[in-house]
Amino acid sequence: MASQSMTVSPPPAPAPTQFTTLGEVYETAPRMLSPEAWAYLDGGAGAEETLADNLRAFQRWRLRPRCLAGVVTPSTATQFLGMPLAAPILTAPIGSDILFHPDGQCATVRAAARRGIVPVVSEASHWPLETVAACADGPKVMQLHAWGGRDEFLALVERAERAGFSAICVTIDCPTLGWRERIMRRRFTPRDDAWTGNCVGPPGAAAAAAARLSGGRGSEWTWETLADARPAIGLPVMVKGVLTAEDAEAAVAAGVDAVVVSNHGGRQLDGVPATLDQLPEVLEAGRGRVAVALDGGIRRGTDVLKALALGADVVLVGRAAAMGLAAAGEPGVAAVLRLLVEELERSMLLAGRADLREIDRSLVRRSAD
Amino acid sequence: MASQSMTVSPPPAPAPTQFTTLGEVYETAPRMLSPEAWAYLDGGAGAEETLADNLRAFQRWRLRPRCLAGVVTPSTATQFLGMPLAAPILTAPIGSDILFHPDGQCATVRAAARRGIVPVVSEASHWPLETVAACADGPKVMQLHAWGGRDEFLALVERAERAGFSAICVTIDCPTLGWRERIMRRRFTPRDDAWTGNCVGPPGAAAAAAARLSGGRGSEWTWETLADARPAIGLPVMVKGVLTAEDAEAAVAAGVDAVVVSNHGGRQLDGVPATLDQLPEVLEAGRGRVAVALDGGIRRGTDVLKALALGADVVLVGRAAAMGLAAAGEPGVAAVLRLLVEELERSMLLAGRADLREIDRSLVRRSAD
Amino acid sequence: MASQSMTVSPPPAPAPTQFTTLGEVYETAPRMLSPEAWAYLDGGAGAEETLADNLRAFQRWRLRPRCLAGVVTPSTATQFLGMPLAAPILTAPIGSDILFHPDGQCATVRAAARRGIVPVVSEASHWPLETVAACADGPKVMQLHAWGGRDEFLALVERAERAGFSAICVTIDCPTLGWRERIMRRRFTPRDDAWTGNCVGPPGAAAAAAARLSGGRGSEWTWETLADARPAIGLPVMVKGVLTAEDAEAAVAAGVDAVVVSNHGGRQLDGVPATLDQLPEVLEAGRGRVAVALDGGIRRGTDVLKALALGADVVLVGRAAAMGLAAAGEPGVAAVLRLLVEELERSMLLAGRADLREIDRSLVRRSAD
Amino acid sequence: MASQSMTVSPPPAPAPTQFTTLGEVYETAPRMLSPEAWAYLDGGAGAEETLADNLRAFQRWRLRPRCLAGVVTPSTATQFLGMPLAAPILTAPIGSDILFHPDGQCATVRAAARRGIVPVVSEASHWPLETVAACADGPKVMQLHAWGGRDEFLALVERAERAGFSAICVTIDCPTLGWRERIMRRRFTPRDDAWTGNCVGPPGAAAAAAARLSGGRGSEWTWETLADARPAIGLPVMVKGVLTAEDAEAAVAAGVDAVVVSNHGGRQLDGVPATLDQLPEVLEAGRGRVAVALDGGIRRGTDVLKALALGADVVLVGRAAAMGLAAAGEPGVAAVLRLLVEELERSMLLAGRADLREIDRSLVRRSAD
Repeated sequence: MASQSMTVSPPPAPAPTQFTTLGEVYETAPRMLSPEAWAYLDGGAGAEETLADNLRAFQRWRLRPRCLAGVVTPSTATQFLGMPLAAPILTAPIGSDILFHPDGQCATVRAAARRGIVPVVSEASHWPLETVAACADGPKVMQLHAWGGRDEFLALVERAERAGFSAICVTIDCPTLGWRERIMRRRFTPRDDAWTGNCVGPPGAAAAAAARLSGGRGSEWTWETLADARPAIGLPVMVKGVLTAEDAEAAVAAGVDAVVVSNHGGRQLDGVPATLDQLPEVLEAGRGRVAVALDGGIRRGTDVLKALALGADVVLVGRAAAMGLAAAGEPGVAAVLRLLVEELERSMLLAGRADLREIDRSLVRRSAD
Repeated sequence: MASQSMTVSPPPAPAPTQFTTLGEVYETAPRMLSPEAWAYLDGGAGAEETLADNLRAFQRWRLRPRCLAGVVTPSTATQFLGMPLAAPILTAPIGSDILFHPDGQCATVRAAARRGIVPVVSEASHWPLETVAACADGPKVMQLHAWGGRDEFLALVERAERAGFSAICVTIDCPTLGWRERIMRRRFTPRDDAWTGNCVGPPGAAAAAAARLSGGRGSEWTWETLADARPAIGLPVMVKGVLTAEDAEAAVAAGVDAVVVSNHGGRQLDGVPATLDQLPEVLEAGRGRVAVALDGGIRRGTDVLKALALGADVVLVGRAAAMGLAAAGEPGVAAVLRLLVEELERSMLLAGRADLREIDRSLVRRSAD
Repeated sequence: MASQSMTVSPPPAPAPTQFTTLGEVYETAPRMLSPEAWAYLDGGAGAEETLADNLRAFQRWRLRPRCLAGVVTPSTATQFLGMPLAAPILTAPIGSDILFHPDGQCATVRAAARRGIVPVVSEASHWPLETVAACADGPKVMQLHAWGGRDEFLALVERAERAGFSAICVTIDCPTLGWRERIMRRRFTPRDDAWTGNCVGPPGAAAAAAARLSGGRGSEWTWETLADARPAIGLPVMVKGVLTAEDAEAAVAAGVDAVVVSNHGGRQLDGVPATLDQLPEVLEAGRGRVAVALDGGIRRGTDVLKALALGADVVLVGRAAAMGLAAAGEPGVAAVLRLLVEELERSMLLAGRADLREIDRSLVRRSAD
Repeated sequence: MASQSMTVSPPPAPAPTQFTTLGEVYETAPRMLSPEAWAYLDGGAGAEETLADNLRAFQRWRLRPRCLAGVVTPSTATQFLGMPLAAPILTAPIGSDILFHPDGQCATVRAAARRGIVPVVSEASHWPLETVAACADGPKVMQLHAWGGRDEFLALVERAERAGFSAICVTIDCPTLGWRERIMRRRFTPRDDAWTGNCVGPPGAAAAAAARLSGGRGSEWTWETLADARPAIGLPVMVKGVLTAEDAEAAVAAGVDAVVVSNHGGRQLDGVPATLDQLPEVLEAGRGRVAVALDGGIRRGTDVLKALALGADVVLVGRAAAMGLAAAGEPGVAAVLRLLVEELERSMLLAGRADLREIDRSLVRRSAD
């Protein structure tokens, strides 16, 4: 496997960071990036309505705390698809990771492991999956696109299994790249080596793999493609990008173990609903037959609380973790995860919930307007 | 026919344009225009509530994509009133066209033909209809106002038929000009030769025709006027400006083939609803007896998707095309049409719809707030 | 009558004004006034929520036009309490009128007469009612406060009758002055002679009358006070300030002929609803037993259209007329009235309504959001 | 009692203040404070959604005035838990009071007494309760946290009883400090002596008491803890921080006399509803078995009117009073209370309500949007 021979520059020792709020991380990130990389990280598709709505959706819910509940040390521990988690949080996959920091998702994986958080590792990254897997112990999920032929796909699954990943996450909302105007205005496309780290092998095969990853051409994948491949996958399978009851039903029928209610952080089809707004529809269609995760718009501990109260098992944080990566590499990601978990703990304490099992529908009500 | 003797300055060869987003076109246009012409192009009537609402209405709907649909090359082709279309888009008529570019709608017609788009040619323009018709092959629609006597009107219809137009579009929401405060504040009125290109003939007749076009005096036209004239029109007839069930019923009764749900881009009676908000009412009243087009607020491929999902057969783009005309003449219009179609294709791909027949009500839901 | 001996400086000949929009009038007014007078004119009470809501309420309704209605010359003529009106508009009473222009409401009355508009003349003004009445022919309404003893009140009524007024308007929402923070912050109170023009007679009586007009002390008036006085009033009676069904019922029981749905332009109790939002409740309670006028937030011809479509017989314009007065005296008021009527006519033409009888509930629908 | 030996610097004689609106007080306060103290006073928790919503909630209601009600001198007098009140207003407890002014809550208590307002004295303040109690006659309430052991708590209750307090207010929404980002960003924590004034006694005991007050660790208190302690409290008991029916029920079951619908001014768990939005739920659960107060967002007399119309017996003002304290010490607080009561009186007059018994549900309706 060619990836074995790629050199990973040893990441600098994590400098101590002293971020006290995510806002500080978000303010630091653009100062560390080129305008192009910032546009790529911060931007969404189209008019960025979905991007904005992802955040707004959390404001449509209010928390109903329980006072004098005797909570002293709330526990945020849980498990997801058999993986233990210090908090109900995974990091979402982000491609072209070295646009944000030379360590790319190696830093993310190390920071996540340090916090007991499970990372979902991106296929379209600079670092090959084997390199990333070797960065830290602890459970990890490998993300793959629903692109190309069955054999190519299963070859990547096999590499992930061998590298020790605990689950596969198939991204289904990316048959082509979204209409991302901020980078279009800058005539920016990530350079090839930012996202072709897994296109390894003899020259021709690598080129083919890279071609497979290029946007702009659609994908022949259907739910049948996935159903056919499912038995050949020895790990639990999540599909990321489910927004409707129809797709939730299809996912169950295809044999997946978990769905991620996701709109790709507002980066794919603009105008789709906020993920939190679609969670009830997906949960109802899933009827307990799949685990349900959610990403999009998670910026605070109280956002996690609301997503869980509305039925999500866990959340994924994509942009927020990448902001930490951009701001300060591994310590930046670690700071983001620390702050999210601390605010979650603080919020559970104030809401009178001792552990995640006590977070249910009674914790939320719709906002008054 | 006097128009034959009018000299059309040969338009400059389309310079290559490199607009990547409609936003860039909108930013370029005002730099190419006098403040008066910009006020005329960009402005609406009254407090511009309808103008704003036309855009806002699209935000009231969210898209429900279908993933893993196996779409690789979506088709945007369709037909309207028997005319083939590369995409479900027509350009809307805009009067006083040479305010925006010396080529006026000649440029629009050429750009539309290049993209397989049907243009609706304005009566109140600088260039006579025969000149415009000769600019490019491909189907074209001639727009006429519901003004003046039956004979004058039918004479124009006859000219359009002879010039090879494929349909007639009668504008019904313009018995007088809207209360347009931006140009009122500038004491601006388009100069006569900007909109009297079709007032041809002997001096007296031309003056009479020009007088007929002047705003500020109302129109004696009723639905009966149109119904009486209908049998004498050998082409399909659209009426533009239908916003209510009552008018949709009247249009059907008058024998028209298509209605355009339109509020004249917010330029006539301010305070009328957004066109997208009135589409259901018109569709219900039409009960399949007329084709239904919509204009107002179309700025993106996802807007087209929403309009079609809610039942429109095609959309018209007025201001957007005119922005392209102002920004760069024919290549500017062509860029606008190219971007709209590209974003539409990309959006169909991401929404999992292979062709326009798959765009139905299941693609949309109301926004959460 | 002492007012006879007061000298009215002959107003300057109306300079020709060329306002083309009300916006220009609103921009001119503050340039002609001291900051204190501007705060008094433009400001409302409290947080100015009601002031803003009065305007916002019109945006909650959309117009449903009728096309091809054959309207050429719409008629805005009507009558109210037996008074003929060129348009369904009265000017509302504004106290301390010489703060805005030396001619005060003399200018307003003249401008109104010139336009066929009925003015409601303020009691708390610089110019005595007899002087004002002599300024112009045509019907006029005298406004009086629900303050002080029955005899004092009826003495003013008698003066009004003798001076030729056609109706009495009793303001009921002003038992004390509103909590007007803009003028409180400026420590501003209109000087006495701005509002005591009707406190005429021997020194003691004038002082008593002035004392009666002072704010800050409440009023002993009840609906019974009005009912008792009603038979002694030989003119039609309007009450201004009705916002609820309860007060509408009480007004009918007290024998009044018309109610004005009014919140004093947001200048009295802040936090009360927009007048347009209360119109249905008042109409339902009135059940056709009283004429119904509305003021508050009228800035355009389309506002008039909406108020009438929702059931008002006429509207009053207060601040808008006073802006004209401040901007340019009589010609300023005349310009405001001209623009309102012109935009109303234009809007009727575009809405396909030939006269006021055709303006009914079918003309409006709620906004989509 | 060690507090006896603490020296209270004699407060400066109240300078005459001339605030005419609360806005002026709010503008003055930040000019008198360090940025850190201002962040502490003005800020809330998290994204400050609850802070903003507390204010917004009052805008969701409109007042329905009654005209010609014959009100001349409205009375705002009432009583609460047996304490007479010149107006239905108490000052809310605020910790770390000397951050805002050296006199801290001594000034607040004196100003309140001067206005016939009952102050709720904070436990976590610089000045010991005995000192504060001695500042002024008139009824006062002592606030205590639901922290630490039963005996420590009851010892404080006993001190309060001995010092002459009339009631106890137990804060239940503060098991730990809220996630207050404005002060986190400034790395600010109030210095110890700002809030440990009641940690008196031998060195070890004082340290223990201070430790008890530190945030960040949760509280073992349950409703049973309170129920157990209740019989040992010889005074009426309020609990502050009730937002839900569940907690209202629990409060009744624990034997409390009054609940305060409160979210700690948006300073504890961000994302909880506005207090005014939760008032109906709490009232319904309480079914008349407890008195109900409300705090959060009271900035005007009309806010008091709305809270009472919706069922609150009294309101507490926290931030507004502290703004007065910061702006000008005792006279500042007195000015705030004066303005609130004056605007309340004015509003009752304009709403036609002669006393608080006439303020009922008929006074309010929901806003139109």
